[in-house]
Amino acid sequence: MEHTVHSNYLRRCFQLAQLGAGNVAPNPMVGAVLVFDDKIIGEGYHQRYGEAHAEVHCINNALKSHPDLICHSTLYVSLEPCSHFGKTPPCADLIIQHRIPKVVIGCRDSFEAVNGRGVERLRNAGVAVVEHILEQEAMALNKRFFTFHQLKRPYIILKWAQTKNNVIGSNDDERLLITSAVTNRLVHQWRTEEAAIMVGAKTAVKDDPLLDNRNWYGNPPVKIIVSASGNLPGHLKLFQSGAPVLVFTTQQGKDEGQKRFIKVAASDFLDAMLRELHQLQLQSVLVEGGAQLLKSFIDAGLWDEARVITHTTMVAASGVQAPRLHNEALLQTEIFLTDEVAIYKNNTNHFIGSDG
Amino acid sequence: MEHTVHSNYLRRCFQLAQLGAGNVAPNPMVGAVLVFDDKIIGEGYHQRYGEAHAEVHCINNALKSHPDLICHSTLYVSLEPCSHFGKTPPCADLIIQHRIPKVVIGCRDSFEAVNGRGVERLRNAGVAVVEHILEQEAMALNKRFFTFHQLKRPYIILKWAQTKNNVIGSNDDERLLITSAVTNRLVHQWRTEEAAIMVGAKTAVKDDPLLDNRNWYGNPPVKIIVSASGNLPGHLKLFQSGAPVLVFTTQQGKDEGQKRFIKVAASDFLDAMLRELHQLQLQSVLVEGGAQLLKSFIDAGLWDEARVITHTTMVAASGVQAPRLHNEALLQTEIFLTDEVAIYKNNTNHFIGSDG
Repeated sequence: MEHTVHSNYLRRCFQLAQLGAGNVAPNPMVGAVLVFDDKIIGEGYHQRYGEAHAEVHCINNALKSHPDLICHSTLYVSLEPCSHFGKTPPCADLIIQHRIPKVVIGCRDSFEAVNGRGVERLRNAGVAVVEHILEQEAMALNKRFFTFHQLKRPYIILKWAQTKNNVIGSNDDERLLITSAVTNRLVHQWRTEEAAIMVGAKTAVKDDPLLDNRNWYGNPPVKIIVSASGNLPGHLKLFQSGAPVLVFTTQQGKDEGQKRFIKVAASDFLDAMLRELHQLQLQSVLVEGGAQLLKSFIDAGLWDEARVITHTTMVAASGVQAPRLHNEALLQTEIFLTDEVAIYKNNTNHFIGSDG
Repeated sequence: MEHTVHSNYLRRCFQLAQLGAGNVAPNPMVGAVLVFDDKIIGEGYHQRYGEAHAEVHCINNALKSHPDLICHSTLYVSLEPCSHFGKTPPCADLIIQHRIPKVVIGCRDSFEAVNGRGVERLRNAGVAVVEHILEQEAMALNKRFFTFHQLKRPYIILKWAQTKNNVIGSNDDERLLITSAVTNRLVHQWRTEEAAIMVGAKTAVKDDPLLDNRNWYGNPPVKIIVSASGNLPGHLKLFQSGAPVLVFTTQQGKDEGQKRFIKVAASDFLDAMLRELHQLQLQSVLVEGGAQLLKSFIDAGLWDEARVITHTTMVAASGVQAPRLHNEALLQTEIFLTDEVAIYKNNTNHFIGSDG
């Protein structure tokens, strides 16, 4: 019973947290609600990087209308309150100062300066701390953040579109267009949600895509091209629009404008590339093909999520076959006009929830 | 000759950088100027944590009046431009994009995600990078930041006031007042500049100081009390005002309000305490006494700077003797009314410049 009550308020925290999407990275998204006698008296979320944390907004919100009830209320927060003095004072201290007797947290913060110290600080001051209610969901909310900090690599999402008979491209130089206008827009939303998009050189040259997010709203992701030779025609459309382009290659290349070459060893290509992306603080990447690049991520087990768009009627007589996932679990499917969108998670990975 | 020109513009960067003092921590302070034909066409500095870097402000400033000259100018920046994609795009990329042919930097950024990668990125794009012009001064500008990240402890400033015959306190329970109203105000400025102030328990009880920065403008520092027993009377003035109080002790203590107990082993007290302060992200500490606490920092070689206020006429018949520094170098002295203020640096430490 209490568990259900806690879950409901934590879910509200998750909703609030997501309002910060796109504005708080590289921080995690966090939401908080303050509850007295089964009524919410304050709400808040981390709105913008470098500004106040969710707990501060939530307590300030409650101070306006119910200042006397705060010390009798329960604070729900999707992530462990911080305990360090950074750009803002520790949220754990703020909670203690306002004599809030009980805190329910979604999950701990694996950031080095917090990592259990917030919980310890609260308990040492006599605050009751409840954990492990919706821990998986709380971690899934910030799956990019947790994967990045704990696995020291970006969160990896594989994405491709295929015909009903699993063909993702033509055998010749023609571009095979599979997705409808609606799923195409969805893909642009996905691009906006990630720090970077990646394609192989063959796809970049053959399809000549813009690789941007023009059909959605928000910051354009960094473009990453995997090209062993580093030879990419300067006229490619992806070089025309605004976002920086990183070219991973085994050769030296001359940087120009928004184009940056990063040389990595052929023997260790995938791992070395992911280490570089970690260094560059890119928390997530959407890998959009071709088949060979997708396959190399799958074979190495280096993926967290796969999003497969399948045309429900189109059948190709021949063409490049879609890659096959290993250890995948289907999370959800949805139909958009002619297309079915299936979301899979990698079953061997820790931080994947059900929010696709 | 060219060296002198570079020095002058870098010094202007340092001036600009300091305008961000108090608003950019835990980031370093950074200033930048863009110079065409020995005239400054753009200036900028890092104004606020989480917001645009110095280079962005500088280039935007030049774009308003001299957009065509930017690609023929030299950019001076007090710290290596960043190369990672964090909350803002990499400054190195911005420089390359604007085809700025030459960059003079004050020093490299030891932050893990930069650390030479900014310079490498610029050089790889054909930008001429000049280094080592005023490197010591550039590091001294961000001595707290560099000490914190490289030595994994706060920057430590020792401070005491003494009579002409080196007495810092009375032998009885009376508080010995040495500083004038002017130096007292200076001390409050010093407190405002650091993340934390520290005193021993005896000083906290005997002098009963407020330990705040009421005579200056800015955020109050965290108060740190070193108390082996952890027994501190609740009526002490330092518990009355706003800033959090950390009590380092060898015992367990019950946290209340703004008071937080941190237990550390007696055998390893100083090192353990500094490790905790590093974890709490406190980048600097002003140690204000008493004699015993100051002496323990000196004996362990754990100090970066010492600021000694000496009354030019007052002589005490008896009392607690001032500690003696080891390996110190006098940087500057200045007279304020009755008091002489001397600034020393620890000669065994790396990042100390002459800016006191």
